[in-house]
Amino acid sequence: MKNFININDIVDYKSIVKEAIELKKDPYTLKNIGQKKTLGLIFFNSSLRTRLSTLKAAKMLGMETLTMNFKSEGWQLEFEENTIMLNNSAEHIKEAAQVISQYCDIIGIRAFAQLKSKEDDEKEKVINSFLKYASVPILNMESCCAHPLQALADAITIEENKKISNPKIVLSWAPHPKALPHAVANSFVNMAKINDYNIIITNPIGYDLNPKITGGIKIIHNQEEAFEKADFIYTKNWSSYNSYGKILVNDNSWKINKTKMELTNNAKFMHCLPVRRNVIVDDSVLDSNSSLVINQANNRTYAAQTVLKKIILNEK
Amino acid sequence: MKNFININDIVDYKSIVKEAIELKKDPYTLKNIGQKKTLGLIFFNSSLRTRLSTLKAAKMLGMETLTMNFKSEGWQLEFEENTIMLNNSAEHIKEAAQVISQYCDIIGIRAFAQLKSKEDDEKEKVINSFLKYASVPILNMESCCAHPLQALADAITIEENKKISNPKIVLSWAPHPKALPHAVANSFVNMAKINDYNIIITNPIGYDLNPKITGGIKIIHNQEEAFEKADFIYTKNWSSYNSYGKILVNDNSWKINKTKMELTNNAKFMHCLPVRRNVIVDDSVLDSNSSLVINQANNRTYAAQTVLKKIILNEK
Amino acid sequence: MKNFININDIVDYKSIVKEAIELKKDPYTLKNIGQKKTLGLIFFNSSLRTRLSTLKAAKMLGMETLTMNFKSEGWQLEFEENTIMLNNSAEHIKEAAQVISQYCDIIGIRAFAQLKSKEDDEKEKVINSFLKYASVPILNMESCCAHPLQALADAITIEENKKISNPKIVLSWAPHPKALPHAVANSFVNMAKINDYNIIITNPIGYDLNPKITGGIKIIHNQEEAFEKADFIYTKNWSSYNSYGKILVNDNSWKINKTKMELTNNAKFMHCLPVRRNVIVDDSVLDSNSSLVINQANNRTYAAQTVLKKIILNEK
Repeated sequence: MKNFININDIVDYKSIVKEAIELKKDPYTLKNIGQKKTLGLIFFNSSLRTRLSTLKAAKMLGMETLTMNFKSEGWQLEFEENTIMLNNSAEHIKEAAQVISQYCDIIGIRAFAQLKSKEDDEKEKVINSFLKYASVPILNMESCCAHPLQALADAITIEENKKISNPKIVLSWAPHPKALPHAVANSFVNMAKINDYNIIITNPIGYDLNPKITGGIKIIHNQEEAFEKADFIYTKNWSSYNSYGKILVNDNSWKINKTKMELTNNAKFMHCLPVRRNVIVDDSVLDSNSSLVINQANNRTYAAQTVLKKIILNEK
Repeated sequence: MKNFININDIVDYKSIVKEAIELKKDPYTLKNIGQKKTLGLIFFNSSLRTRLSTLKAAKMLGMETLTMNFKSEGWQLEFEENTIMLNNSAEHIKEAAQVISQYCDIIGIRAFAQLKSKEDDEKEKVINSFLKYASVPILNMESCCAHPLQALADAITIEENKKISNPKIVLSWAPHPKALPHAVANSFVNMAKINDYNIIITNPIGYDLNPKITGGIKIIHNQEEAFEKADFIYTKNWSSYNSYGKILVNDNSWKINKTKMELTNNAKFMHCLPVRRNVIVDDSVLDSNSSLVINQANNRTYAAQTVLKKIILNEK
Repeated sequence: MKNFININDIVDYKSIVKEAIELKKDPYTLKNIGQKKTLGLIFFNSSLRTRLSTLKAAKMLGMETLTMNFKSEGWQLEFEENTIMLNNSAEHIKEAAQVISQYCDIIGIRAFAQLKSKEDDEKEKVINSFLKYASVPILNMESCCAHPLQALADAITIEENKKISNPKIVLSWAPHPKALPHAVANSFVNMAKINDYNIIITNPIGYDLNPKITGGIKIIHNQEEAFEKADFIYTKNWSSYNSYGKILVNDNSWKINKTKMELTNNAKFMHCLPVRRNVIVDDSVLDSNSSLVINQANNRTYAAQTVLKKIILNEK
């Protein structure tokens, strides 16, 4: 694997999931492959799970790690080409990416969508600029439109918990007070498609995700209908894609509760975290045995470890 | 040791002090017991000594460390149960503690008193919530009402420097421009009691500490009288406990100076640091041979190392 | 080497450059000399290259590292002697430096010039206070008036890229929208002098550097004349030294461009980074094969590693 930017960087998804599940049994077994290798983690946004699980994964591979909160610890970066840098940006990504490449063997980047302009966000200027100018592999720790480490952890969790070979998976929108990016939902959908999962999406009218990503997947605007006989309910808020970055309606009736979960086939509840309790989902669901949210977070470590391993060993 | 939250988590205080003094002679002797173990340090407040000494201690045990400044690097946490999370908090402690537990073998927490409500501070909601929801041992790196790592370092320092078996120890309030928590004073008193130290407390009227903690200990409101024949002067400012969190009077006459130290039995001067020079204590005392403040800070490392060792090995 | 504060701490500059170039070939060869040693890095200012390269260097020597962003993570420090600490500073450098010395075997300090008072900046109060009160070696990671790790990396880069034994080196001022310190330029000049480099300086009138540093070096106020037959163009902005910290004129005509580079002897272009593109220098120069800026940044690692090695082994 050369970089891990999105789903396409995984050649055989089923095999990487299997490998991660295997590695989880004895995660220190690869302690030596990262010797004399350094992972740089560059954060442009807050992070709990990604920060800790990726660091943990790197250390379990024997890697050294260098972490930077770029906004507070580094220099404001310029991403435009051919610009006269008279504004607040002190350094161009062109230098920054080349320089960091010399101190690190792999660079992880976390840079969220701004949700101001669809066009801008879809350009993925931060991660794509690193990809363009860095001379070492790039690891996506959540970009504007993709969060493939989360999707891989989700796939691991589904494999570990599914009771039938092709379970019904429902990706359900839920309300949230702030406008949120589409990255997690996008990557979950892409991951489900590549795994041929039996997935449907349910969200209010106006909240359909990017049709290029959801193409071929049924979208139902009636949540209760969607939940019927589901084996997994994967919940996530996102802002409107069509009215880009807007909160159209914060419909509390879309919150996940016990009654809705009872429509399912005793479904497992999933969410990438952080989750706003009793806004996205009721305590009664989150605190029930059906919830897999803690398992998902745990699998972030093994997702990262497996991806780092593939990059280090340059395996397919 | 399962957790290190307060003094009660130490079964045999004299023996843990002895052990720390022994470890100090060759602190890398236990380099292997932390292998494949990760210490997570979660800071909600500033820290110099605690941050560096605890990290150093962990590394000397061979542990990996993960550090987070939670407010700036993570998500704002919600601690209330059964709440509808529509305010600024993006994540509930319930998830955060469970999630961090999966990446760490021990979690250190630093969360100061707010000094707004006695009741709230005494609930110790941050550290107690971690204790409740985490699945791994919790290490108190200063909570609202307790700073047991500091007290342990203080006990080590007293043992190293005492000239008679049961020296007279005076805990003396001193003035400070800002309202400060009671954590250090509380833990020092608890530690002195468990060690049967000959301790008295001196502070202005209105500044008596929590009587549940000081019960059985003489409190003198005349500082000079208290200092007579003292072997150790342990100085600390705290805000009023009765008029909770208030500065009643900032009486400069309570500052520690040479003249007062001359009332003592050639006493050693102690303070947990940071200390405001010429406010809490005169330069002439702090810069004299009587001062043990640097030794105390040094012993923070061995206090932390001994506690981490006991947690890792699950020793009493 | 006892400390690395400025050029005078290097006894034999040519030999240390040679050593760094040798180490670069196999930088993990000294993996064992830092065992059980801890490098503390204390940042009072932003840093990308210094942070990452120094951490990388320490880790390649087998050292543990402790990093603190002092302003946000620690306590505000007081540097005045004999002061009554009633202002915002919670801790005196006297304690802080002694305390950190107990957790670290070497302490790196980064504290920029304030550019408000020449006298104050030249006192170098931060790094000199650490030097005065710490009990372990101090490493300058850029102080008010010196950046010797940068200068060493620059010397390594010149040695690696020079085509004749005594190349003509031009230090050229260039425009910048903000007032910048003199540290990099000062250390470059000092380094060039100690190496007997054939160096001249070119800057607008009013921008002459500290004459105590530039003494003996030709300063030309005509940039084009200076560039003639140059082998290396080392570019840097600095604010006025005479009208201390002021921007006298931001003369765009001093920007480095292709036409000016064509006046040289096919010179290599150098800059310490971060660099403002098309303000300091045109894209066409920075993106050409003549540019050594990325190499300079890379050599920061080997500069730091060689200096740390000399401190650890207490070599001359």
